[in-house]
Amino acid sequence: MKIILVGASGDVGRAAHSELSERHEVIRAGRTTGDVSVNIADKHSIEAMYDEVGTFDAVISTSGNVHFAPLTEQTEKTFSLGLEHKVMGQINLVLLGLSRISNGGSFTLTSGVLDRDPVVSGTGAATANGALAGFVTSAAIEMPRGVRINVVSPGLLDVSEERYGAFFPGHERVPSDRVGRAFVKCVEGAITGQVVIVS
Amino acid sequence: MKIILVGASGDVGRAAHSELSERHEVIRAGRTTGDVSVNIADKHSIEAMYDEVGTFDAVISTSGNVHFAPLTEQTEKTFSLGLEHKVMGQINLVLLGLSRISNGGSFTLTSGVLDRDPVVSGTGAATANGALAGFVTSAAIEMPRGVRINVVSPGLLDVSEERYGAFFPGHERVPSDRVGRAFVKCVEGAITGQVVIVS
Repeated sequence: MKIILVGASGDVGRAAHSELSERHEVIRAGRTTGDVSVNIADKHSIEAMYDEVGTFDAVISTSGNVHFAPLTEQTEKTFSLGLEHKVMGQINLVLLGLSRISNGGSFTLTSGVLDRDPVVSGTGAATANGALAGFVTSAAIEMPRGVRINVVSPGLLDVSEERYGAFFPGHERVPSDRVGRAFVKCVEGAITGQVVIVS
Repeated sequence: MKIILVGASGDVGRAAHSELSERHEVIRAGRTTGDVSVNIADKHSIEAMYDEVGTFDAVISTSGNVHFAPLTEQTEKTFSLGLEHKVMGQINLVLLGLSRISNGGSFTLTSGVLDRDPVVSGTGAATANGALAGFVTSAAIEMPRGVRINVVSPGLLDVSEERYGAFFPGHERVPSDRVGRAFVKCVEGAITGQVVIVS
């Protein structure tokens, strides 16, 4: 398969790439690195990426920013980052790719653990994760031409410990290869409309 | 208790009012009707409402618009309505009310059935509903001064059949009084961080 991997340079993106790149043509997309450039906050950038890639069978998105801060310090502006980038950015990858993806192709998005197992300062992430779960559950029943859609919801990756560990006291760290295999399940398997929890 | 009911003129708002108004002082807020005016899409309007009301013990929000359309006709613009109005509008009621609400008070938001039981054209609603579930789950662990937060997630109300029934083939219609009692549970009870499903 020809797979577009958006956010390829991040920890989750590398985990997906590691498990899929031996058997598939994986095109790495990112803001500043990779095979093709994309900024998911800009729909014109997404369209330009799809134009450049041409035909494809799957899209994996492991991209999406949110703002971490105590609830009492959150504002409309800090919340909007998660809603506009992690939520709308990933949804735009689907909306704009839907007419271009191969018959029977798949979209796999990425959310995270914080809507089911919250931490202090994580409301922006929890809100975005919940939104993505609702989106794939609903979008799956309207996908044309046998196209599937799922979202992988991993806990904190072992390799992300140093950067984000302090936000996740007592949370089990998830082995990266297990996260990678969740994307294999979504791309090579037949499920749709699922939140694939990796814990 | 002194309760601010935002969206009081809608079907869900009337259901909440009916069950709560005998025992509490319920201040009805709405864009064009009620005791006090508010447009939840505008944070200045929310602040003006709180200024006008003064002290209060609970906020119930039954307000929030989304765009219904087939997935293939949805765009960033149509999705943004739900994210900005139903999600960010209700979250802003919490963020801006948090420093003003009484000790031990409560916020109760409203989502809906479509993130767990989707219908065609409902992706905007499903995304918003999921976001609100993630938000209250996470926000509950950071609430100061014993303040609680929940979200009521009702199916289609019996009284909404005429306007929205065509979107919900085969869905059970939910009696309005049962929806009203879910708000009583959230306001008079002690739960927090819950998605209160009414089906």
